Amino acid sequence: MVGRLLVSCNDRPGIVAAVSQFLSEQGANIVHSDQHTTDPEGGLFFMRIEFQLDGLESKIEALREQFAEVANEFTMDWRITSADEKKKVAIFVSKEDHCLQDLLWRWQIGEMAADIKMVISNHPDMETIVAPFEIPYYHVPTTKDNREESAVKHLELLEKADVDTIILARYMQIIPKSMIDQYKNQIINIHHSFLPAFVGGKPYNQAYERGVKIIGATAHYVTEELDQGPIIEQDVERVDHRHEIQDLKRVGRDVERMVLARAVQWHLHDKVLVHGNKTVVFR
Amino acid sequence: MVGRLLVSCNDRPGIVAAVSQFLSEQGANIVHSDQHTTDPEGGLFFMRIEFQLDGLESKIEALREQFAEVANEFTMDWRITSADEKKKVAIFVSKEDHCLQDLLWRWQIGEMAADIKMVISNHPDMETIVAPFEIPYYHVPTTKDNREESAVKHLELLEKADVDTIILARYMQIIPKSMIDQYKNQIINIHHSFLPAFVGGKPYNQAYERGVKIIGATAHYVTEELDQGPIIEQDVERVDHRHEIQDLKRVGRDVERMVLARAVQWHLHDKVLVHGNKTVVFR
Amino acid sequence: MVGRLLVSCNDRPGIVAAVSQFLSEQGANIVHSDQHTTDPEGGLFFMRIEFQLDGLESKIEALREQFAEVANEFTMDWRITSADEKKKVAIFVSKEDHCLQDLLWRWQIGEMAADIKMVISNHPDMETIVAPFEIPYYHVPTTKDNREESAVKHLELLEKADVDTIILARYMQIIPKSMIDQYKNQIINIHHSFLPAFVGGKPYNQAYERGVKIIGATAHYVTEELDQGPIIEQDVERVDHRHEIQDLKRVGRDVERMVLARAVQWHLHDKVLVHGNKTVVFR
Amino acid sequence: MVGRLLVSCNDRPGIVAAVSQFLSEQGANIVHSDQHTTDPEGGLFFMRIEFQLDGLESKIEALREQFAEVANEFTMDWRITSADEKKKVAIFVSKEDHCLQDLLWRWQIGEMAADIKMVISNHPDMETIVAPFEIPYYHVPTTKDNREESAVKHLELLEKADVDTIILARYMQIIPKSMIDQYKNQIINIHHSFLPAFVGGKPYNQAYERGVKIIGATAHYVTEELDQGPIIEQDVERVDHRHEIQDLKRVGRDVERMVLARAVQWHLHDKVLVHGNKTVVFR
Repeated sequence: MVGRLLVSCNDRPGIVAAVSQFLSEQGANIVHSDQHTTDPEGGLFFMRIEFQLDGLESKIEALREQFAEVANEFTMDWRITSADEKKKVAIFVSKEDHCLQDLLWRWQIGEMAADIKMVISNHPDMETIVAPFEIPYYHVPTTKDNREESAVKHLELLEKADVDTIILARYMQIIPKSMIDQYKNQIINIHHSFLPAFVGGKPYNQAYERGVKIIGATAHYVTEELDQGPIIEQDVERVDHRHEIQDLKRVGRDVERMVLARAVQWHLHDKVLVHGNKTVVFR
Repeated sequence: MVGRLLVSCNDRPGIVAAVSQFLSEQGANIVHSDQHTTDPEGGLFFMRIEFQLDGLESKIEALREQFAEVANEFTMDWRITSADEKKKVAIFVSKEDHCLQDLLWRWQIGEMAADIKMVISNHPDMETIVAPFEIPYYHVPTTKDNREESAVKHLELLEKADVDTIILARYMQIIPKSMIDQYKNQIINIHHSFLPAFVGGKPYNQAYERGVKIIGATAHYVTEELDQGPIIEQDVERVDHRHEIQDLKRVGRDVERMVLARAVQWHLHDKVLVHGNKTVVFR
Repeated sequence: MVGRLLVSCNDRPGIVAAVSQFLSEQGANIVHSDQHTTDPEGGLFFMRIEFQLDGLESKIEALREQFAEVANEFTMDWRITSADEKKKVAIFVSKEDHCLQDLLWRWQIGEMAADIKMVISNHPDMETIVAPFEIPYYHVPTTKDNREESAVKHLELLEKADVDTIILARYMQIIPKSMIDQYKNQIINIHHSFLPAFVGGKPYNQAYERGVKIIGATAHYVTEELDQGPIIEQDVERVDHRHEIQDLKRVGRDVERMVLARAVQWHLHDKVLVHGNKTVVFR
Repeated sequence: MVGRLLVSCNDRPGIVAAVSQFLSEQGANIVHSDQHTTDPEGGLFFMRIEFQLDGLESKIEALREQFAEVANEFTMDWRITSADEKKKVAIFVSKEDHCLQDLLWRWQIGEMAADIKMVISNHPDMETIVAPFEIPYYHVPTTKDNREESAVKHLELLEKADVDTIILARYMQIIPKSMIDQYKNQIINIHHSFLPAFVGGKPYNQAYERGVKIIGATAHYVTEELDQGPIIEQDVERVDHRHEIQDLKRVGRDVERMVLARAVQWHLHDKVLVHGNKTVVFR
């Protein structure tokens, strides 16, 4: 059984040795390991280890307890997860279905290791798409005027299902602070431009006006500042003068779903570490 | 011998017929033709035709005179050029040599169909690089305080050599209005970011701070508003958390020179038409 | 109403003039035009024109009759189509659903201008996927041993529905000569490698064995020689040593559906001209 | 001072712990670490560690001696290098200068951490290009008939200068077994196609004939079988029907030099491990 250990802390000599020594003593075999230090002098240390350990499921709590001592010595932020414990996901969507459809398709063929608990929308439109997958669909009418009340309903639904990851699959409403605080670095948004170009609404119209030769999409964790959160993944596609706004949108849909799918994949596999307003992605 | 005919005008029926009829009557054979209309209803019409015509050199003036009548009928912006008449180019550079070196190398192996008349710099550093190519190098010390006086010197040099195209190959000074007016849509700049992200100075530092996963470069015609001119070409390269600012610059140098080389190539082959703040590029 | 005129013939002076003159006389306005000549001396001439003509639907037969005369003069291969007359498509599929799902989704949201007449499979598996779209699903059990008999059934189904375009959306059976002859340059296949690398079966296994750093997909028209037909579109994605065969397949699925979608889009919009074993794609 | 430790061996539990424990005891601080196991059950283990250790230069021999014990326990292939000890490089070139020029330029601006000992060519043409860099240029006339004799001269030159890395920068002669044996996984070739497509001579002509929509380049270690060695890096560029063979070559030159530059960079930084006919590249 495969487990994952993630560590962030101030760098100093001996961290890798201490961590790998610990895993070795537990009988775990390290199968993948990535490590990054921002600066050899006084920088930050990041590590992700994938290890194999028989009977991990029954041992994981004890493992965590014991690792806490190592972690304490180095003042680590850390977590140990099991690859078998799937993250519990809620997908938020508005009226554009491409990202939702793409995620559901990946989930159905087993490409997306998640437990999709629900789809929440401010519109009823997507219910028929979701129905065949037997995933609960909640229509919570939301506008900029009742954002906070909706958030209360949202949080109630999310908590009841023990959701830990929220995917905004082209959800066109602003997420209030109350929800962001509760799901820090656990809400993934797909923005339909290559950020920081074209922040805010109607980025394809902005791109058309500026006459760019490349359009893009950005998946990022949601923070209070609109479109300013830590970027997880970006990608682009070439366009030219023949692309009207509707063509940019068409091309963009493909980029958006690819970028979102990769960001979600990495998040679900605990490959993303956040520091400040940036991410370390151990792909 | 190959000629090129470029046309921009308001769209209306019969333009292609009139133009191709004209060329046919002159005995010219159309070998490539690209045409674009922004909107079938009241849009703009753009066309680039490459034609073969024996003895073009001696006939080109007469051809222009005669085409003026067709052009007049449709109120066209137009030009007829000969592929054998190379554009006369000045390269402006500061202290970074990668774009300059790349252009000179392409020119030397015959990839760049231009007559490079001079290299102008606000520093003496690049003289030894330019010397072996036997291209005049002018050191015109320029700062933000003597910009206008420098422009006077620049224009004098450019006019004497009949320069028609200016390439800013990482020239780190702002071009004053006097020069922009004289060289409208003939000054190509390479900006070291994916515009409109990271306008202005130190874009790689800005990119590092924002934590983008992709960096880029943009070649554009210079207008009075900094980094706001019509975009000719853009491209990008992936980066990740391991890239320090110096790594972004290293990766960026390769993107910059590729993007600039393509934009210059298209400009030299009369493949770029400007309308408003956008370009039509018939690649 | 938008019409399209496609022309291939031996190049000689006056073709563009004759064609555009003809369209102008009919009152048609050329809105897009692409033209390519392989060689100014004795080469081949290709042209695609998009024109606007009121009442095209009722005039198209007369238009064709009249254009035949122009065509005759230049010994053209040609066709005139209406953008409103959607192509009639059959999709063939085996057990992998990603290309099928992607096409159906694009069709549903109006991105794919086709009339999907049927889905044909050598397996019953995809029927539930197709059912909600209310497209007929025909299960025609096919193996290498009954290929010809199946082809007879296939052709019967296709002819009854007047199908003109066949898309092999990961259909893992060889198409017999009888069908290829009848649907020349109208059968699009997606091959899961960057052709001509990894011809034949299990290309991802071949790619894994060779240790390539990039995998790809190729959409091509089907000819008698396996994986040797005219290439319409190709694209690639980076991989590295961490990608097991199953990861190559996962990454590959995304490339495959994008490449197939683009090739289908261009075919449906009459943007692909075939000569010899190559294509001219007027994107 | 930065050192690098590279390890390949059969996987078993405890390797990371043993290695990191060793480095920790020596007072070394791990600043980057990459690890890959091909298969948790009986697979191969690969690791690259970058560590900081004061006074590495004077300690490196002792470090190697002591690490030999750890290595012995796990039957490792391993090496410890210092980032300050630059590799000693010979560049082989024929008549195409683009890869050579690109490498020299990168070397000159400090991008390429190598000690370029010599340029060897079967032609005299490149001497004037190399001269300004004050790098010895050896013209060793070589044809397929005197290959072995040339190799004797080559090896003599290489050994006298203690060369450890050979870069074939578009060297159009086959390398004989004698040299390959002596420089196993130390000869980098750039092949001007996306291998395994278009093995052998004139790949751009082959690409043109096949009508591919993408061309590429491949950097690989040279083995006895032509164009079959372990691939280090590949990249591609889009082309279309308008690209004649000379255009493919032009576009290809840019891909070739980028791909070669990256492969060389990774080799020089000890980021490439070879197993069988594949590479693990810890980018």
